[in-house]
Amino acid sequence: MAKIGPGVAGGNNRQTLTDSDAEGRSLFKKWCDEAGLTMGVDQMGTMFATRPGTDPDALPVYVGSHLDTQPTGGKYDGVLGVLSALEVVRTMNDLGIKTKHPIVVTNWTNEEGARFAPAMLASGVFAGVHSLDFAYNRKDPEGNLFGDELKRIGWVGDEEVGARKMHAYFEYHIEQGPILEAESKQIGVVTHCQGLWWLEFTLTGKEAHTGSTPMNMRVNAGLAMSRILEMVQAVAMGEQPGAVGGVGQVFFSPNSRNVLPGKVVFTVDIRSPDKAKLDRMRAKIEAQAPKICDTLGVGCSIEVIGHFAPVTFDEKLVTAVRSAAERLGYTHMNLISGAGHDACWAAKVAPATMVMCPCVDGLSHNEAEEISKEWATAGADVLFHAVVETAEI
Amino acid sequence: MAKIGPGVAGGNNRQTLTDSDAEGRSLFKKWCDEAGLTMGVDQMGTMFATRPGTDPDALPVYVGSHLDTQPTGGKYDGVLGVLSALEVVRTMNDLGIKTKHPIVVTNWTNEEGARFAPAMLASGVFAGVHSLDFAYNRKDPEGNLFGDELKRIGWVGDEEVGARKMHAYFEYHIEQGPILEAESKQIGVVTHCQGLWWLEFTLTGKEAHTGSTPMNMRVNAGLAMSRILEMVQAVAMGEQPGAVGGVGQVFFSPNSRNVLPGKVVFTVDIRSPDKAKLDRMRAKIEAQAPKICDTLGVGCSIEVIGHFAPVTFDEKLVTAVRSAAERLGYTHMNLISGAGHDACWAAKVAPATMVMCPCVDGLSHNEAEEISKEWATAGADVLFHAVVETAEI
Ligand SMILES: NC(=O)NCCC(=O)O
Ligand SMILES: NC(=O)NCCC(=O)O
Repeated sequence: MAKIGPGVAGGNNRQTLTDSDAEGRSLFKKWCDEAGLTMGVDQMGTMFATRPGTDPDALPVYVGSHLDTQPTGGKYDGVLGVLSALEVVRTMNDLGIKTKHPIVVTNWTNEEGARFAPAMLASGVFAGVHSLDFAYNRKDPEGNLFGDELKRIGWVGDEEVGARKMHAYFEYHIEQGPILEAESKQIGVVTHCQGLWWLEFTLTGKEAHTGSTPMNMRVNAGLAMSRILEMVQAVAMGEQPGAVGGVGQVFFSPNSRNVLPGKVVFTVDIRSPDKAKLDRMRAKIEAQAPKICDTLGVGCSIEVIGHFAPVTFDEKLVTAVRSAAERLGYTHMNLISGAGHDACWAAKVAPATMVMCPCVDGLSHNEAEEISKEWATAGADVLFHAVVETAEI
Repeated sequence: MAKIGPGVAGGNNRQTLTDSDAEGRSLFKKWCDEAGLTMGVDQMGTMFATRPGTDPDALPVYVGSHLDTQPTGGKYDGVLGVLSALEVVRTMNDLGIKTKHPIVVTNWTNEEGARFAPAMLASGVFAGVHSLDFAYNRKDPEGNLFGDELKRIGWVGDEEVGARKMHAYFEYHIEQGPILEAESKQIGVVTHCQGLWWLEFTLTGKEAHTGSTPMNMRVNAGLAMSRILEMVQAVAMGEQPGAVGGVGQVFFSPNSRNVLPGKVVFTVDIRSPDKAKLDRMRAKIEAQAPKICDTLGVGCSIEVIGHFAPVTFDEKLVTAVRSAAERLGYTHMNLISGAGHDACWAAKVAPATMVMCPCVDGLSHNEAEEISKEWATAGADVLFHAVVETAEI
């Protein structure tokens, strides 16, 4: 899979709804076909590959993640979860295991949200958080619509989004953080996921010549952006431990060396597992940013372009993961997911949880993202046992 | 001319060596042909349209500016100077004026430096500041080379750059600053041009997930950039009056909402008419920036990608401009150019000066850039008289 949409430094650039995404989907479908699974696709392009159960009335156990990547993403973020789910059913095939509940290997569309915000878009529509219309009208930086791009790559399915009902949802993912490695644990038993706000700022300054515009006549949107970044840092530091805040995306306009920016657009990403902290950070930022801008004469508008509340995963499924790790003799610990995952939206409509394995230096959203074979195997092993137990032999 | 490469808000996007630039050049050539001028083009694509003089041994008086614009540029920045130079020779034709020295209407390539840094590139090669090879190897943000693009649009001339010798160089330009309008003067007699440093910063952080990377594990190049912007502002404010400093261009990489930037590239633009202040600002910024980065663990490299020292224009030509304004009854004042101009490089190899007219609100490098007909006319009138006097009837 990593051969499709290679990155520039050993990782991947297989962003959602690109030609590479289409190629990745075709390969995944081929592998599903070879494993005897039946593919269904919904109107968001999410792929559901079913292994039948023995009880025609039993709801399926869904197991999956996402095949899309960041523009400079790693080989494992998302992909590990989809291919391990496939490996679970292949292993069941090899061992001749039959379960009461069907198993559905799942590849959610646009988990990353790098090309089209917000992240976890298809699972969000599935869970009824967003409308299909909202999703279809998301724009990438070039102005392409999500709906048009989904059609272009040929992956608009006919299933109504969210029509499927789930007995359970499991997602196996790399931690993307440093805790498991630091604590020398093989398995993260994911009990919660922290919540998030994405606040998109549009600052309006006065486009003007950098040379001939005196300091006191500047309406400097770039300087306002700088002060807001510093303030976001201070707000997050003020809520330690258990909170983060930062900025990954900034657009200066017109972005010319000798033009003070007339417009600066950037996204603040704040997260916490504690809803009170999360909302307090947002309130502080929304209160302080306009003041910072006012002192510079800069216009400030703030739009929420992504949000999920902190999630508590299903106790029974969490226990299934923990006892599988226990039984198999893997070291484990409880973990709060620092990143958002499709499991977070799935948890709105079904019992859901996650399994995590460590990643080197906690590094993710970086082409250098790395895991060991042993880590990958331990997690897949735990996933297999928890899924088979939940699907009932 | 403003119909070619229209902007999005009433101005122009006719960046150097684009198809629109080629179209503008053709139109300008047609107008020169119609005025009976002979066109020469040098290896930098600079256009020289000659009206012969009466003395075969007399060096020409050059009059010009540039037709390229910023990505969101005004209709007058540069263009006013080229078309007024053409109007000067048309008026001489109409009045049957013959001069001892030839007149050469000039359109310099890539004055703006928006697409290819540094600014005033062709006049810089002409003045021997840059080599032709250096110029040909400048890259635009998409990685296209200046030399390739010049060839692509068909404007590589055969003249050796800088082979022409000048009796004098005049450039008429909008002020791009607020002083003439504030002082209610029609004509700026430009005695000096402030100097500039363009410092390109490359900050190296650690690309990492915005959600799952704890605050204390971040190597945040975006935060370092913010602190450097704030520091540049403080350094410029500390040198008031007579100094400016700011940032117009910032690139985050990978520029994804949920990825802390692994790399941030931006250009600091500092200027002063006082060489000591200019160099002191650079020294302060170069001393403080690495310290700011060090405290965050961020790598910092700084490259000079543009520079010119403050310029003193030729006393005799300055006097010619001032006495023309005086004779014609226009209000005038001495002015230091806040922006860089091709005249600044021409001044290295010939007597040179400039004429300026006001612009509304001092606004330039903005599509809303505006001048009145009366202002434009007064400046062209002064230019005509100073040029004819210098070219000797
Ligand atoms: N797992 C992951 O990186 N998801 C993208 C959404 C987020 O930024 O948390
Ligand atoms: N006149 C003008 O805007 N020139 C561009 C170079 C500069 O930034 O000063």
